[in-house]
Amino acid sequence: MNILIVSAHPEPASLTNALRDIAIDQLKADGHEVQLSDLYAMNFKTVVDRDDFPAVDPAEPLRPTVASMKAAAAREFSQDVLDEQEKVFWADAVIFAFPLWWFSVPAIMKGWIDRVWTAGVGYQLTGERYGAGRMAGKRAMLMVMVGGQESYFSERGVNGPINDLLFPITHGMLYYPGFDVLPSLLVHGTHHLGEKYPAVVEGVRERMRTLFTIPPIPFRPQGGGDYTEKAFELREEVAASAPAGFAAHIHTDAE
Amino acid sequence: MNILIVSAHPEPASLTNALRDIAIDQLKADGHEVQLSDLYAMNFKTVVDRDDFPAVDPAEPLRPTVASMKAAAAREFSQDVLDEQEKVFWADAVIFAFPLWWFSVPAIMKGWIDRVWTAGVGYQLTGERYGAGRMAGKRAMLMVMVGGQESYFSERGVNGPINDLLFPITHGMLYYPGFDVLPSLLVHGTHHLGEKYPAVVEGVRERMRTLFTIPPIPFRPQGGGDYTEKAFELREEVAASAPAGFAAHIHTDAE
Repeated sequence: MNILIVSAHPEPASLTNALRDIAIDQLKADGHEVQLSDLYAMNFKTVVDRDDFPAVDPAEPLRPTVASMKAAAAREFSQDVLDEQEKVFWADAVIFAFPLWWFSVPAIMKGWIDRVWTAGVGYQLTGERYGAGRMAGKRAMLMVMVGGQESYFSERGVNGPINDLLFPITHGMLYYPGFDVLPSLLVHGTHHLGEKYPAVVEGVRERMRTLFTIPPIPFRPQGGGDYTEKAFELREEVAASAPAGFAAHIHTDAE
Repeated sequence: MNILIVSAHPEPASLTNALRDIAIDQLKADGHEVQLSDLYAMNFKTVVDRDDFPAVDPAEPLRPTVASMKAAAAREFSQDVLDEQEKVFWADAVIFAFPLWWFSVPAIMKGWIDRVWTAGVGYQLTGERYGAGRMAGKRAMLMVMVGGQESYFSERGVNGPINDLLFPITHGMLYYPGFDVLPSLLVHGTHHLGEKYPAVVEGVRERMRTLFTIPPIPFRPQGGGDYTEKAFELREEVAASAPAGFAAHIHTDAE
């Protein structure tokens, strides 16, 4: 299979890059093809601006969403965006490896999402999303280096539960475009891994071995009947038996 | 009072910038001092890298958190970061005006947070956070342009509730450094505001008039007794009566 890894750490000798390289090693050992977008090494442009839309008249105000929709049919995007989109189209799975900075991805990775998820790629003019869309049939996964103690991110931890903090990414940035999103691979306490390191490495290798077999997070597809037709809100009977918070958008075992 | 506005939209004629300028107009009319960081106009550097830490030996690997902690005492950060920090120190309130892109801030604003919230500013070597820290006594607020329909972001909406989607920002990026965080000012359906525009403008003006009088979101302070001492998890008796999800970290009316 084909795997794209997108990574974002400024230091080649970082834990992020070390575990990313172990993932690549395991994937290749298992016979997969791998492409890497190391965003810092590429000096990837981070901001959406006028240069992203070469077909927009310089005399017109730039409305990014409108510009993206107009550019989608002829794919009139800047070359670096087109190159990244080609890698995503090629991939059967996309892995995002990054340190959690201020409870989200580093800016350079947010910039990759902001720029590469254009109309026709990240979102469809026809409105398919959440379980449908251009990325349907592909898998995606986060590989997250978390600096703080695990308890801070637990169900009752002061930061909020880690999977809820990642929901805008897993559900919003990945399930929305259509990916099947795997449970995030979390590495906690990264400042003091010490003797835990070999187990972390084995965890990365095992996850790579099972990348195409473990079940994705069972997010509810928008078109699956759980949401109302135009407002796209959980139907009352679904909400009644669903947990509160983001978890309501995940199928429960009982269903 | 002194107000810093940080805004992030590539188009000067955007709704974000129009409402930001109305906010500035109202604040000045009410006798406040205003500084503006228009991140696109400033071409603000977005990525954390080695240039942010001039004191780090080029032969050493860059560990951003360690580098930041070492640089904090003598404030050995790059000049553009120091300039932004001075504005924040000067301000009694900081307002972030931006379009919601992929359920978060645009990359350039994430870069402002990643870079400006250094050790000693965004986080303390002594561990104070969530209701304590360098920003204690200051107010912060998000002013968010939301492209989708309001129902998509409702309590049961398919995207998840907007205030939960913003929690990694309001709680994680702002309450953590010590700000009192006001309820976010949300502008929904920004692609089709039409005749709603005057009411939106009045909403912005009214919010500016009450910037220092409306109550902040009653997030639970880490040191307020609701969390355990070292693990920083909600105490069982608190969690038992708290709602599920991120809302558990907000005081309820009953308390």
